[in-house]
Amino acid sequence: MKTNEKIEALNNIKSDLYKKDLLLTWEKSEQDLKAIIEVAEIFKQMRDQNISTRVFDSGLAISNFRDNSTRTRFSYASASNMLGLAVQDLDEAKSQIAHGETVSETANMISFMTDFVGIRDDMYLGEGNKYMREVGAALDEGFAEGVLPARPGIVNLQCDIDHPTQSMADLAHLKNQFGSLGNLKGKKIVMSWAYSPSYGKPLSVPQGIIGLMSRFGMDIELAYPEGYDLIPDVVDMAKKQAVQSGGSFNISHDMNEAMKGADIVYPKSWAPYHIMQQRTDLLKNADAAGLKELEKVCLANNANYKNWEYNESMMKSTKNGDALYMHCLPADISGVSCKEGEVECDVFEKYRIRTYLEACYKPYIIAAMMFTNRFENPSQILKQLMERNRIRVGV
Amino acid sequence: MKTNEKIEALNNIKSDLYKKDLLLTWEKSEQDLKAIIEVAEIFKQMRDQNISTRVFDSGLAISNFRDNSTRTRFSYASASNMLGLAVQDLDEAKSQIAHGETVSETANMISFMTDFVGIRDDMYLGEGNKYMREVGAALDEGFAEGVLPARPGIVNLQCDIDHPTQSMADLAHLKNQFGSLGNLKGKKIVMSWAYSPSYGKPLSVPQGIIGLMSRFGMDIELAYPEGYDLIPDVVDMAKKQAVQSGGSFNISHDMNEAMKGADIVYPKSWAPYHIMQQRTDLLKNADAAGLKELEKVCLANNANYKNWEYNESMMKSTKNGDALYMHCLPADISGVSCKEGEVECDVFEKYRIRTYLEACYKPYIIAAMMFTNRFENPSQILKQLMERNRIRVGV
Amino acid sequence: MKTNEKIEALNNIKSDLYKKDLLLTWEKSEQDLKAIIEVAEIFKQMRDQNISTRVFDSGLAISNFRDNSTRTRFSYASASNMLGLAVQDLDEAKSQIAHGETVSETANMISFMTDFVGIRDDMYLGEGNKYMREVGAALDEGFAEGVLPARPGIVNLQCDIDHPTQSMADLAHLKNQFGSLGNLKGKKIVMSWAYSPSYGKPLSVPQGIIGLMSRFGMDIELAYPEGYDLIPDVVDMAKKQAVQSGGSFNISHDMNEAMKGADIVYPKSWAPYHIMQQRTDLLKNADAAGLKELEKVCLANNANYKNWEYNESMMKSTKNGDALYMHCLPADISGVSCKEGEVECDVFEKYRIRTYLEACYKPYIIAAMMFTNRFENPSQILKQLMERNRIRVGV
Repeated sequence: MKTNEKIEALNNIKSDLYKKDLLLTWEKSEQDLKAIIEVAEIFKQMRDQNISTRVFDSGLAISNFRDNSTRTRFSYASASNMLGLAVQDLDEAKSQIAHGETVSETANMISFMTDFVGIRDDMYLGEGNKYMREVGAALDEGFAEGVLPARPGIVNLQCDIDHPTQSMADLAHLKNQFGSLGNLKGKKIVMSWAYSPSYGKPLSVPQGIIGLMSRFGMDIELAYPEGYDLIPDVVDMAKKQAVQSGGSFNISHDMNEAMKGADIVYPKSWAPYHIMQQRTDLLKNADAAGLKELEKVCLANNANYKNWEYNESMMKSTKNGDALYMHCLPADISGVSCKEGEVECDVFEKYRIRTYLEACYKPYIIAAMMFTNRFENPSQILKQLMERNRIRVGV
Repeated sequence: MKTNEKIEALNNIKSDLYKKDLLLTWEKSEQDLKAIIEVAEIFKQMRDQNISTRVFDSGLAISNFRDNSTRTRFSYASASNMLGLAVQDLDEAKSQIAHGETVSETANMISFMTDFVGIRDDMYLGEGNKYMREVGAALDEGFAEGVLPARPGIVNLQCDIDHPTQSMADLAHLKNQFGSLGNLKGKKIVMSWAYSPSYGKPLSVPQGIIGLMSRFGMDIELAYPEGYDLIPDVVDMAKKQAVQSGGSFNISHDMNEAMKGADIVYPKSWAPYHIMQQRTDLLKNADAAGLKELEKVCLANNANYKNWEYNESMMKSTKNGDALYMHCLPADISGVSCKEGEVECDVFEKYRIRTYLEACYKPYIIAAMMFTNRFENPSQILKQLMERNRIRVGV
Repeated sequence: MKTNEKIEALNNIKSDLYKKDLLLTWEKSEQDLKAIIEVAEIFKQMRDQNISTRVFDSGLAISNFRDNSTRTRFSYASASNMLGLAVQDLDEAKSQIAHGETVSETANMISFMTDFVGIRDDMYLGEGNKYMREVGAALDEGFAEGVLPARPGIVNLQCDIDHPTQSMADLAHLKNQFGSLGNLKGKKIVMSWAYSPSYGKPLSVPQGIIGLMSRFGMDIELAYPEGYDLIPDVVDMAKKQAVQSGGSFNISHDMNEAMKGADIVYPKSWAPYHIMQQRTDLLKNADAAGLKELEKVCLANNANYKNWEYNESMMKSTKNGDALYMHCLPADISGVSCKEGEVECDVFEKYRIRTYLEACYKPYIIAAMMFTNRFENPSQILKQLMERNRIRVGV
């Protein structure tokens, strides 16, 4: 569809994103999610047409990465930049936060001229999402009290529960690959655990996937070796959503079986829920010996499931032998990034470029989240941007 | 007052800030200081009206933090951004400066397209302010010799002697709280040492406060346990200024007594002058054992003055039991950020939001310092900005 | 020449830089090199005239410094900024690259909204330049496959073979000092090894200098103690170029003799080629003991050549006793940055400001490389910039 037509159509989506943080996709309506996808697609088209999407003449986007990150860091930087914001890292190691200051204080101190605060905090079960809400409450107070000239929006760049910028980028990719969100109805997507020679991988990606894809009438197959559970509440919620949206939800413990007839497969490692709980306690107590011991036990346990590798024979058992392979990247590719991993080298190679295409939506999704948080009538502002027709590169 | 009226009134302030660094507030005239406060207030109003204050289409603001910082770092980034400058950190650990290159060389090498250099250097007594002047001289030479297309301004983001962006933000807050700078005349402000379980806190905040507030006819009470002196020259200068401006200056050694009848209180820990001298020598010699021993002695000495905590009974003894509490943050809050500290938890909570309001002036103050350094006629340029009326957010 | 005249004249230079990376100067035609110098000079004039050179309304310039850097880092940041790009560091330590992901993947993941990728990679012989080409191939693929909306240009910020932003800045300086590139014909330039109390200095500067200056009819004298060879292929190439351009090329092993009658001298330390090869192997194997041993041997060997210091007597033997002294900085200055080094303190001081002037071209050179990579008709775009006449600072 042409950009102007898409902008017109966006007008008909009744979203309620203005001045609201998106911390879990399942707290948002389908209309909200659709609006974000649409805005992301419009931004992508505008980029291709060399039309500037800059709506901030100046302003800061804070990033607070409590864990390492490449692609989300660059996606956030890209999104901020395309809207006109400068990224300022909050590096807690270089700050005075170690002095013991409160979340409320820090949140306000960094926000006097801030339009968005992007946070990644996925190490401690029960902490990351909670921390984001604490920051949000502090910013609410600061704005209400006149400390802040505006209430900065919060962007969840991955927490202990959800990874909304990832899952929404994945959804945009699915929409593109299958033609429409409507076409996803009845498709079988397998979110499967896969073997990895590392441990402690967060639960937020698989949880984010089942929490989002269950909104669109898909048949969700969640597969993992016994014991490798996700957070039970999230699984329950996803089940309910799947049924409500006209799809289904099934849990199984055999990767080979699970893959049969799949339209989409997402084989990815994670640590079992109960291990993440133990790990959280050990991390809190800075129990290095305990952590080392836990890692040893986990790796040994993982090693029992080396056959949970997405391979050619599984691929052949999927719909037409060609289910869309997805991954948030980097994948543990057998023989490339590790000896034995999540996916066979040749299988990954077949879908490699498509995983890049999947990833390329993330900056646009983040920009769309910011944009819809900031402007009450996104369609109107996009229309004005098209009319302004300022070129991004050139004179 | 309306923004346009304030801009008009600014015209009547005869400041002399153009192309001059502000390294110590007491080197500047009252007119200079007033002009900076006015410009800061105008910027704040423009932000609230969504009017862009961008005067640089491109350009760099270097930051050189030789010590940790959160709020000053973000304030500098915010100020730079609202004027249109990109911040570039000079991280000495990642640079070739360890090779032994000279201050003159480094200063020029980072300044080919630089509009401002912000420096924090407060660890070594006798060094920080001196270093800034060395950088300034190098930039003078580089500009005179045609190496630099412009002479970047230097922003003192805290040195061993003064903390002008802090004290000026504090002054803007006082003006706001008491209605005008004129209303500060005759007000009693207590700059008091307070107990902290840490040591080595710089002298620049208390020195900056007595060095600036003594310009406006206030009654300055400097209170600290015997032995916890500030740099004698700074105290002498502040005394003279206080008398000249129609105020007074008194030193006392009893926190309870000092607080009586105060309009404003600023209880904050610092390390004694003679300790900072010893510490400087030990740091220069990288004498780890000596530093450890000195820390032990100091903490033990501090512990003798745990009753130097600003508490409810002291608060009740102030003017109307409600003197304005100030702090540069983060404060050592008893029971919150430490077991025993500078201020009682409930007392801090009462003024907490006001300390945030105090802090929120810093980005505007820094931007005003940059702006008045760069433009000979700030009132004229501000008028043009109002007429340009470019919106900060939106299309 | 006036800016508009220079822009007009640029039209007559038939360069072929559009959409091509500049990874080695000797892969480019003389017209290419001249075009870059011209654009750099035009940018410099525009800066002096307060005319904005901003051609990107938004966009990212990635920097990937695999070694420490100050001046190149700031030059890249300056160049990016003057064109309107925001710099985003790829800090491999803070990323997930350690996970073992491929160059292809990383290159694409950071480039969804990237206009340029600047890379410094000079530690491993045989690796740096190769890595840049791998990144280039990955970006080609990403662009061809629709992953990237544009193919980001690559800027070689120093590799194992060449240091084109340095050598081109040096050439711009020579053009300025001698009046024209034509005037360089027949001038004697001595690229000489010099003593340094450190080891492992890269070969890219001397190689870059002989590889570039041999294009303009100069008499190249390459002087070093026996055993301190450069990469043989590069020396052979430079020899051929020198002859082809009507100049000459001579290798000698006596610094005193080499300097006689020189117009230009460039005394700078480097590590012998065969040592760099050994060092590369040891670094790859993370052989700390081997590296320590190699360092010891090398420093001892260096110490045999302490008389390779550019001193007053050598200076007096040059043309009119006043050959132009050049250095990429920081120099090892005897008695300033080290006890005994590459150059006598008084000699360096005489040319110090001129080394700063030399360095000041680097941001403009980098900006010119980016600009000519991005616009098919640089002259036309520059003309439009002059007509647009947007001021850089002011309203």
